[in-house]
Amino acid sequence: MNKVYVVGIGPGGAEQITPQARTAMERAEVLCGYMVYIDLVRPLYPGKEVFTTPMTREIERCRRCLEFAQSGRTTAMLCSGDAGVYGMAGPLLQLCPEFPEVEVEVVPGVTAALSGGAALGAPLMHDFCVISLSDLLTPWETIENRLRCAARGDFSICLYNPSSKKRADYLRQACDILLEEKSGETVCGWVRNIGREGQERRVLTLGELRGETVDMFTTVFIGSSATQAVSGWMVTPRGYEAKR
Amino acid sequence: MNKVYVVGIGPGGAEQITPQARTAMERAEVLCGYMVYIDLVRPLYPGKEVFTTPMTREIERCRRCLEFAQSGRTTAMLCSGDAGVYGMAGPLLQLCPEFPEVEVEVVPGVTAALSGGAALGAPLMHDFCVISLSDLLTPWETIENRLRCAARGDFSICLYNPSSKKRADYLRQACDILLEEKSGETVCGWVRNIGREGQERRVLTLGELRGETVDMFTTVFIGSSATQAVSGWMVTPRGYEAKR
Repeated sequence: MNKVYVVGIGPGGAEQITPQARTAMERAEVLCGYMVYIDLVRPLYPGKEVFTTPMTREIERCRRCLEFAQSGRTTAMLCSGDAGVYGMAGPLLQLCPEFPEVEVEVVPGVTAALSGGAALGAPLMHDFCVISLSDLLTPWETIENRLRCAARGDFSICLYNPSSKKRADYLRQACDILLEEKSGETVCGWVRNIGREGQERRVLTLGELRGETVDMFTTVFIGSSATQAVSGWMVTPRGYEAKR
Repeated sequence: MNKVYVVGIGPGGAEQITPQARTAMERAEVLCGYMVYIDLVRPLYPGKEVFTTPMTREIERCRRCLEFAQSGRTTAMLCSGDAGVYGMAGPLLQLCPEFPEVEVEVVPGVTAALSGGAALGAPLMHDFCVISLSDLLTPWETIENRLRCAARGDFSICLYNPSSKKRADYLRQACDILLEEKSGETVCGWVRNIGREGQERRVLTLGELRGETVDMFTTVFIGSSATQAVSGWMVTPRGYEAKR
């Protein structure tokens, strides 16, 4: 069979990998992916063949994955979190027309918006936006416009890739844009090393978040105007209370 | 121990329930939830005590859940999809100050944006918004404003609760608002009965979506201006191609 599974493995631990994802990895003869993600699941499949490329060679990784499948070897492309949210499902599916005999199945997983949200409580209980602050593939003006629109819509906001060595002040810039529309008292939170050893979390205000130093292993949550801090949790009400 | 787990069970099938969620349900003496969700997992835990309330009694359900835990019975509150995304984690955590001795743990799950997205391909590969069209708990003007802001930010959009008997034309109204900002040729998709028997999907344009009849078991996806239909899949590019 000529099959590729694009698999979301969740935040890292085996206890957050769905049985569907486990089955896909078991069926695969070759596990493809960025080395950091491969290393997370490798202990589960000792001896299984792996193929990795560095961070910047995503298209090549997808193409090789499809070539393995075309040659008859069932293959799994691993993604951290979900397969679709900033994952490899997109670039791989875009190559599909070149490999018409390969069947692709996308297997979803728990993305950081959900696993990080659970660690903080329920920040995404109502309508929300997910925005990546990485401008490697997206013009910064596009990111700025999305931050503004998300603030004007009073969405809860989850920020992926809030920082890196080259972009140390991007979170501060994002906060400044949000502060044009939102109160400095807006309830926010961040989670670092979600679902891994040394997980940390903090609930704080948007004003405090502006001065916070976070790293690339952190996911940031910015509340809507309704979001509250309750017993140390970050909670966005759905509206049941008002209804009652 | 006085513990409540708020558990996201994914779209329905056992193969999409994480081991962490399974462990939480196994530890619980009482499973709480809306009957439809309880029925999805009941075969996994024959004989386990269940407590349900009807659709509109969410706060009561959360309070009883905390009371069970306070009396020393470990309890799991089940949510379809994720525990936090339009789930029960929020209302339950808001009651926590009344139950200071109860420990709460939120266990994330695969929400319909991810499972439905996987069925369609990769519609949420880049920045996206999730919006519920239900105005039971949210004024319609708030929903309209969020649709407009999501369109102006050129986000991919995932719509929950696109329809019900009382709100048969809400999807059409939402499409009309989006069509003020977006092309009628925008690539869209919907998935019905995600991860359950009789799953259906369709990739179509925003103009076509406007005339589509969907039910309450359907999740709708509206592309950004960059979203493409590729070999029957709905794919939002991340930008690797341009970079290369």
